[in-house]
Amino acid sequence: MDFELSARSKDCLQRLGAFMDEHVYPNEQRYREERDAGDRWAEPALIAELQKKARAAGLWNLFLPESTRGAGLTNLEYAPLCEVMGRVVWSAEVFNCAAPDTGNMETLERYGTPEQKRQWLEPLLEGTIRSAFAMTEPRVASSDATNIESSIVRDGGSYVINGRKWWTSGAGSARCRLFIFMGKTDPGAPAHRQQSMILVPRETPGITILRHLPVFGYDDAPHGHMEIEFRDVRVPAANLLLGEGRGFEIAQGRLGPGRIHHAMRLIGVAERALEKMCRRVKARTAFGRPVAEQSVTLERIAESRIRIDQARLLVYKAAWLMDTVGNKAARADIAMIKIAAADTACQVTDWAIQAHGAAGLCEDFELASAYAHARSIRLADGPDEVHRNQIGRLELAKHP
Amino acid sequence: MDFELSARSKDCLQRLGAFMDEHVYPNEQRYREERDAGDRWAEPALIAELQKKARAAGLWNLFLPESTRGAGLTNLEYAPLCEVMGRVVWSAEVFNCAAPDTGNMETLERYGTPEQKRQWLEPLLEGTIRSAFAMTEPRVASSDATNIESSIVRDGGSYVINGRKWWTSGAGSARCRLFIFMGKTDPGAPAHRQQSMILVPRETPGITILRHLPVFGYDDAPHGHMEIEFRDVRVPAANLLLGEGRGFEIAQGRLGPGRIHHAMRLIGVAERALEKMCRRVKARTAFGRPVAEQSVTLERIAESRIRIDQARLLVYKAAWLMDTVGNKAARADIAMIKIAAADTACQVTDWAIQAHGAAGLCEDFELASAYAHARSIRLADGPDEVHRNQIGRLELAKHP
Amino acid sequence: MDFELSARSKDCLQRLGAFMDEHVYPNEQRYREERDAGDRWAEPALIAELQKKARAAGLWNLFLPESTRGAGLTNLEYAPLCEVMGRVVWSAEVFNCAAPDTGNMETLERYGTPEQKRQWLEPLLEGTIRSAFAMTEPRVASSDATNIESSIVRDGGSYVINGRKWWTSGAGSARCRLFIFMGKTDPGAPAHRQQSMILVPRETPGITILRHLPVFGYDDAPHGHMEIEFRDVRVPAANLLLGEGRGFEIAQGRLGPGRIHHAMRLIGVAERALEKMCRRVKARTAFGRPVAEQSVTLERIAESRIRIDQARLLVYKAAWLMDTVGNKAARADIAMIKIAAADTACQVTDWAIQAHGAAGLCEDFELASAYAHARSIRLADGPDEVHRNQIGRLELAKHP
Amino acid sequence: MDFELSARSKDCLQRLGAFMDEHVYPNEQRYREERDAGDRWAEPALIAELQKKARAAGLWNLFLPESTRGAGLTNLEYAPLCEVMGRVVWSAEVFNCAAPDTGNMETLERYGTPEQKRQWLEPLLEGTIRSAFAMTEPRVASSDATNIESSIVRDGGSYVINGRKWWTSGAGSARCRLFIFMGKTDPGAPAHRQQSMILVPRETPGITILRHLPVFGYDDAPHGHMEIEFRDVRVPAANLLLGEGRGFEIAQGRLGPGRIHHAMRLIGVAERALEKMCRRVKARTAFGRPVAEQSVTLERIAESRIRIDQARLLVYKAAWLMDTVGNKAARADIAMIKIAAADTACQVTDWAIQAHGAAGLCEDFELASAYAHARSIRLADGPDEVHRNQIGRLELAKHP
Repeated sequence: MDFELSARSKDCLQRLGAFMDEHVYPNEQRYREERDAGDRWAEPALIAELQKKARAAGLWNLFLPESTRGAGLTNLEYAPLCEVMGRVVWSAEVFNCAAPDTGNMETLERYGTPEQKRQWLEPLLEGTIRSAFAMTEPRVASSDATNIESSIVRDGGSYVINGRKWWTSGAGSARCRLFIFMGKTDPGAPAHRQQSMILVPRETPGITILRHLPVFGYDDAPHGHMEIEFRDVRVPAANLLLGEGRGFEIAQGRLGPGRIHHAMRLIGVAERALEKMCRRVKARTAFGRPVAEQSVTLERIAESRIRIDQARLLVYKAAWLMDTVGNKAARADIAMIKIAAADTACQVTDWAIQAHGAAGLCEDFELASAYAHARSIRLADGPDEVHRNQIGRLELAKHP
Repeated sequence: MDFELSARSKDCLQRLGAFMDEHVYPNEQRYREERDAGDRWAEPALIAELQKKARAAGLWNLFLPESTRGAGLTNLEYAPLCEVMGRVVWSAEVFNCAAPDTGNMETLERYGTPEQKRQWLEPLLEGTIRSAFAMTEPRVASSDATNIESSIVRDGGSYVINGRKWWTSGAGSARCRLFIFMGKTDPGAPAHRQQSMILVPRETPGITILRHLPVFGYDDAPHGHMEIEFRDVRVPAANLLLGEGRGFEIAQGRLGPGRIHHAMRLIGVAERALEKMCRRVKARTAFGRPVAEQSVTLERIAESRIRIDQARLLVYKAAWLMDTVGNKAARADIAMIKIAAADTACQVTDWAIQAHGAAGLCEDFELASAYAHARSIRLADGPDEVHRNQIGRLELAKHP
Repeated sequence: MDFELSARSKDCLQRLGAFMDEHVYPNEQRYREERDAGDRWAEPALIAELQKKARAAGLWNLFLPESTRGAGLTNLEYAPLCEVMGRVVWSAEVFNCAAPDTGNMETLERYGTPEQKRQWLEPLLEGTIRSAFAMTEPRVASSDATNIESSIVRDGGSYVINGRKWWTSGAGSARCRLFIFMGKTDPGAPAHRQQSMILVPRETPGITILRHLPVFGYDDAPHGHMEIEFRDVRVPAANLLLGEGRGFEIAQGRLGPGRIHHAMRLIGVAERALEKMCRRVKARTAFGRPVAEQSVTLERIAESRIRIDQARLLVYKAAWLMDTVGNKAARADIAMIKIAAADTACQVTDWAIQAHGAAGLCEDFELASAYAHARSIRLADGPDEVHRNQIGRLELAKHP
Repeated sequence: MDFELSARSKDCLQRLGAFMDEHVYPNEQRYREERDAGDRWAEPALIAELQKKARAAGLWNLFLPESTRGAGLTNLEYAPLCEVMGRVVWSAEVFNCAAPDTGNMETLERYGTPEQKRQWLEPLLEGTIRSAFAMTEPRVASSDATNIESSIVRDGGSYVINGRKWWTSGAGSARCRLFIFMGKTDPGAPAHRQQSMILVPRETPGITILRHLPVFGYDDAPHGHMEIEFRDVRVPAANLLLGEGRGFEIAQGRLGPGRIHHAMRLIGVAERALEKMCRRVKARTAFGRPVAEQSVTLERIAESRIRIDQARLLVYKAAWLMDTVGNKAARADIAMIKIAAADTACQVTDWAIQAHGAAGLCEDFELASAYAHARSIRLADGPDEVHRNQIGRLELAKHP
């Protein structure tokens, strides 16, 4: 056992950290101003500017293990980079490592035809377009994929798509050009063979963005979570991914790496909140004593450190398992990190808010929005309860 | 001991409930639409419309115990009405029972001169104007009143006010006409004799509203929490409340009833969230079973019921103590209810969010905003930590 | 609403408190010494001595509402007395108010024939004998009464009893003379008509006490929890309570008051632990500061006060409901107090242990045993989970 | 980074597991019977019998890194073995790896003179004697070493020792022959140069064992925690360890490995409790459904798995740091694992108790004693609060 990062990972981490110090942290204020100044759904000019610099610095498409198109990092090697990007909510895009594009690129890389890759994977890897993943539906508990109601019906050389999706993250971006859409091709098939996934260009007629869905009052612009109607949306049959009835299989396959990314970004969120808490309590005095000297403050800082370090190690371990024994064998671990990381980030940001007094509630320290984001992950990809059920069943199965 | 409400309280409660059923719940959607349609800081027309009806129904100024100007209810009798109003965030204003006006009216009633009452208390009781309370400051831990930096300096027949305030709730309203302002008249006096309170008309020159402060992304319009600069703001000396150096005393005096109101409204928030959770879990099925049948769901509902009922009783007891032995003897209880009610409302709304899946995060069920509001109360009026410290010290003092 | 105790209750409380001060607290050490010196299962001589004094002081059989045999107190009036007795684990017996005798006496009073009362209720009320309640079985989840396996079979003028019971509390006492036994008379009847209860004299042939069951290492002598075999135990048919198939009904009927007693005693446990914690932290210094000055200490004391006060009010409310609308209408409340009181007592005693350092683990402050007792109540009378399920279902039923 | 155990560690682990399967688990009942049958403070014959087998199997003195006297394992390599031994509370002694002997042997190895090693280390390594560590005192908060009141006074060629110690674990064993005693040689020196450690043979006149101290009612025989009076105990001056005023330094030095051992054994405790919980819930049915199917059960199992895996990784990381950068650089991590492991073991055993119903409270499943043990670790070596304070301060120091 060895807790040292690989040389390759350390090198990337060092260069990424330097880039953050030079280009990202000093621009946090500018990002906010640009975003709030003009069209909230257009990307601040800062992003394109920094993307150019990141690419020049060799910090581009760092994800995508087992592929020549990425940086050649394993999941474990990539994980600490994700943590760093998690420290500034918009920074992953600078390195073309933002969700849901990463998951969509992985899906295309793994399951796409050469033509699908040429048409969609390449511009995504170039960062010239963005994409979204249309799975969750408003009318059913979508964590149970068998509940999905949207339909994908073959009609000659096309598929015709109907359904209502929501929480389609990233669909708000003016640069979004592609949906990966999940629906049922055969509602009469066995439960996990009913679903398929298909590529739907954003401009296809019949797609209506009904509204954006705020998270605790935040619109998360220019990314955004959208409710979308697909009415008689017709795409070429060649847009189907992998084959009819294989949607559930693809959904399972894309799960693992995305969880690592989400979880590590949340570790970054928690670390940053802890830093802010430390700085704040050192700067404030109440009732004659520095707040940093209060033992209740020290306890929360200590608990934050304990939880963060534990959660990070758990994610590293899951990444290592994915790299060595594969997603399927690691499925309990992949479920566990979602719960642990979100729980940790929620608790640490909540304590950080409390340490900042009322200033923690507004965006002067970007803590309330960090909490909202962390809280949303307890529901994203299925509520924690579904994952705990699965983990519990896998544990019970060890004792036949 | 007797847990039955008084006849007077029950009668009011019955009439209030009927009014809510007839005029408030059916208009929740309309309120949102009106608020979001035009100037967010103007009140929706609905409010004035319902205020007229409420007044006609004898549901007006229900607070204000020990005064002929109110409804003649004790704190304990008024408490359950507050809970009902807490169920719809904007409804208290319909009955002219909204914070911070209630606290300001109580302050004027208790400490104002006849002229101050004529000029400000009367229009407030009429509901023709609104008011705000300018106490918290951005640069210091304001829960410790000795930290306050704003100054109120006598200059001939006037006082000249300087300082920066924030989280001045209600200052966003287009109808806000009055600030009750806390500052130091004598920084050299003993710690709790330095502060004074003074009445500052909204239009006085030198007042600049710098920005509104969102709570978790919500602007809480048209109420709003504002950051305000007071620069050389000059008001007549007669605007001082009670006398120089008595600001801390007034602050203490106004605390009690406000805490009861806040706490009971939070009980209402929690009850409504629990209702929504119950309805949701009955309507949803996942993995072949109604979510309502899951024992984890039942556990959360049960814990919610236990916590809510306990917190409500604690608030009732504090109100009863205020009515029978006074604020000072009840000060530990008044501190306790703030903590218990906010904690309960946070936990129950969080569970309700989780039960709604992603729908809990946006405003379709108004749960995320309810959480944000409950969360903010853990900081309003001083962070919970300050109150727990006080409660702890009072407890230790019982064992000399 | 009124939180003042009735004059009768206050008078009893005052006299009980005086008795505790004069006779109980000063004898805690003596009790331990007597118990540990001789036969652990014989009662320390102190008990009989104090019982005489208590009776002389009119502090005898204070429970038993709605009966001329008791003190004529309602459940609500009796509740605060229970809290006081809970402060010293053995003190309830001094006033002939100890479980399970109280529950057994109530059962006999409510459901017994005149002859059953003469034979068993009278000596129990005199305190000349003690009793036990044999319900829980080792082989099944006994919280679900339909799982009960013991049999009660009619054979001529007798019933023949077979079964294995455990956690039969009080069966360890040398003075125990009676078991109230639950078993099935008709396993083929509808689920809640299969069970019956029957009176079994301790000396009946066929009863073997197999072992005593410790709770966290405590034998709880001379009370004790026993595992008992009943093999072909033959008692007169007249010993049956109420009638065949009515065991479940009796079990339900005896539930309410016992819960109030248990819960209020736990409040007493928690109050005493909090007192000990306060005294301890005032007496100790670490790293240059009194432990009482640490904010983490103050927070725990404050939280203890908040939780205790809330739990007490919840129990009072449940008692009031039992007195005014009856056990059935109050069944959710009766379930709630078991959870809330045990939870509170566990948390407060745990914090008190921590505040005492290693001294909290041994019996110098009787805190670890207090924790063990409180912890056991989370399982007694059915695990909390069963009660939360019931509370949850009752809540859901409000939203049809 | 790599989560694979070293070949040496895996080999030991495999052989240790096989030994446990063959010789330890099948003898758990026999151990209890032997212990409870005769003199509780004499070791069951089983121990010596198994020690012989363990030695023959090359499973002896597995601890003691960086020494030719041990098995040559690093802290990290030894850690997983500790977890396995933690699964059966008495098993570490079988492999001569039981506390406090391990800590005492490490202390002797690191700080002892050749003569001290010959006299005490060798028989300890042989397992022919046992030892204890006399540090904690009843009258002061001993987590703050500057509070220590015991004295070690030079008198000619001897030191004379006076003081009262308690919670001296292992002093109950009939085979205990040595105390390592902490006291002050110079109360006037700087705070951390006042203390010294000295070797005190058990038979030295003036040593009186006053009583054993139970933990939650368990005497932990034949190990036991003792309160001991040292009155004018005279030992040769050569028995001093390292030199006058170096006691604090030795105390710091011995801390690290002991924490790893304690923490990993607690992981073992938690794992075993989780196994028992899984088996139990699969075997029981209540209200018509297997308890294993209840989602509240699955949630607890899942949370247990998440917490255990996280805590284990945290301990591994701390061990790795100790091996690579040393105790001092790892001091925050060493403090963190004590908190995380005890917290995890307490929570998991508590849930396991609850899952077993009343059976969890007695020793049929050895869960209540496991809880008591885990709970005691929250106080052993200084209460968690002291460690959290230290961790908090180290964290704050990162943000100067």
